[in-house]
Amino acid sequence: MQDKIKQLLTEIQAGSFLALAKGITLVENDLPGYGQLLQSLNTTHQPKVVGITGPPGAGKSTLVNALLHEWTKKGCKVAVIAVDPSSPFNYGALLGDRIRLADFYNNDNVFIRSLATRGALGGLNPKIIEITDVVRNAPFDYILIETVGVGQSEVEIAGLADCTIVALVPEAGDEIQTIKAGIMEIADIFVVNKADRDAAESLYRNLKIMVHEKSRDKSEIPVVKTVATDNKGISELSEAIISYFDNFHDSNEKKLQLLTEKCWQLIQHHKMKGIDKRALAMSIKDAYTKPNFNLYSFTDTFLKTY
Amino acid sequence: MQDKIKQLLTEIQAGSFLALAKGITLVENDLPGYGQLLQSLNTTHQPKVVGITGPPGAGKSTLVNALLHEWTKKGCKVAVIAVDPSSPFNYGALLGDRIRLADFYNNDNVFIRSLATRGALGGLNPKIIEITDVVRNAPFDYILIETVGVGQSEVEIAGLADCTIVALVPEAGDEIQTIKAGIMEIADIFVVNKADRDAAESLYRNLKIMVHEKSRDKSEIPVVKTVATDNKGISELSEAIISYFDNFHDSNEKKLQLLTEKCWQLIQHHKMKGIDKRALAMSIKDAYTKPNFNLYSFTDTFLKTY
Repeated sequence: MQDKIKQLLTEIQAGSFLALAKGITLVENDLPGYGQLLQSLNTTHQPKVVGITGPPGAGKSTLVNALLHEWTKKGCKVAVIAVDPSSPFNYGALLGDRIRLADFYNNDNVFIRSLATRGALGGLNPKIIEITDVVRNAPFDYILIETVGVGQSEVEIAGLADCTIVALVPEAGDEIQTIKAGIMEIADIFVVNKADRDAAESLYRNLKIMVHEKSRDKSEIPVVKTVATDNKGISELSEAIISYFDNFHDSNEKKLQLLTEKCWQLIQHHKMKGIDKRALAMSIKDAYTKPNFNLYSFTDTFLKTY
Repeated sequence: MQDKIKQLLTEIQAGSFLALAKGITLVENDLPGYGQLLQSLNTTHQPKVVGITGPPGAGKSTLVNALLHEWTKKGCKVAVIAVDPSSPFNYGALLGDRIRLADFYNNDNVFIRSLATRGALGGLNPKIIEITDVVRNAPFDYILIETVGVGQSEVEIAGLADCTIVALVPEAGDEIQTIKAGIMEIADIFVVNKADRDAAESLYRNLKIMVHEKSRDKSEIPVVKTVATDNKGISELSEAIISYFDNFHDSNEKKLQLLTEKCWQLIQHHKMKGIDKRALAMSIKDAYTKPNFNLYSFTDTFLKTY
């Protein structure tokens, strides 16, 4: 068993997509050897994980697609981890934009894996942390993590990626104050996508002023205009990413933040293991029609007896 | 002590804003009597919680503002719980849109409370569940919960509210497929805000087709066009909400889902109590520069020794 896992990791590190897919499946389904694989990984690897996030309609999938074209043209090896939205109520993961990536499913330099967010209501699937760490141990030039659609948490992706791209669309321009609040802290690069639209120039200018005000001693966060559907601005975006990593210098502060967020989420996942939402629903169903049902007393009792 | 909490709850139930504010502060800061207050609440109350969610820039605060005007004109008592975005890295909550609600701070029929999302990275502050239950015990006609900005999880609000309004802006129209995935499950009412914009008609039509396809036996989810800044469409929205509650009939299925989601989040909050993120960061800081540091072994040891 131990030798098998060691062998699997060696193959993953050597670049075998088959071994990588096996490793991910191991982790995704808690199969035997899962813990050993994780504990054998290099978890303070050199950075190369790029997160793409932003509101629905910002064209995140199209940006991923365009970056894949750009990078594979140059001979880079790229992994894409696509996180699909799943309903909190039906536990189903829906496809959709994934289809756009179909061009690459037979490309030897591109590894694509879609993941559901199943399990954590509104939260990132805790498996994504583990799976990203497995993929980090394979010899990719870049790992792209994309969150799609509504219900994804834009800030969570920042805890996973070394470089977080925040994609915005022109129409968001008039609400720049609202956006400013959460997003300035997580963005390493801003993209104004659909930059051929009327309001693009105003959003771009507002973002430039914002990053300039924020920069102080540090260098300014780049703002890149793209029209991903027409492949415009993609080489500029790629250069901004490369330049980000050139200047990354493995900042200890950011690395520590990243490790802490990841560890926090792993602990949370561990603590909730064994608590089954369906079983919980069944217990509540039995209890809540009784007179004097109180959710807090119920939760208290549940925690004591579980 | 026990009598004091009983007295406080009686005053909350009688409509005292002062008592309500005290009760919320009790819960927010884990003050003595906090558990007793929660366990004395009626937690299967009649529905009246309206959640407003949607991408940044959709005008959620303006909608809340317009609904407040509409309802107070009719003599309704309304509570607003506004959830501000907070950065995952600086733990700060930012104001902003809150200022628009300033008109109502001295209105005897309007109770407003802003909450930070501090604590759960990318997640809803677990206190929001408890605070909403406290507010539910006060005699309001409506309780509005609004999430603002980026990083909020649109699906989590659905676990809190009896009626979830999803606000969209015209520009999202071309990405209707992306939106479709997660949002159809959580929306009880769609709002096309900023409906005076060019693309509004197309978004509206697309949404109508979508809800029609989804409806089957059930009645169609209403789609309401608004220009919240000009107060247009607000009475129609208000009517859609009233009609939703008229037809709510306290669906046992939805009630059970709501209770289960809330209980799940309370359990998660409880399990993570006592784990301090800063202390965790300090431990990781000591460990991660050592050779052979592995995040999964570290987490394992942390869980065993904590």
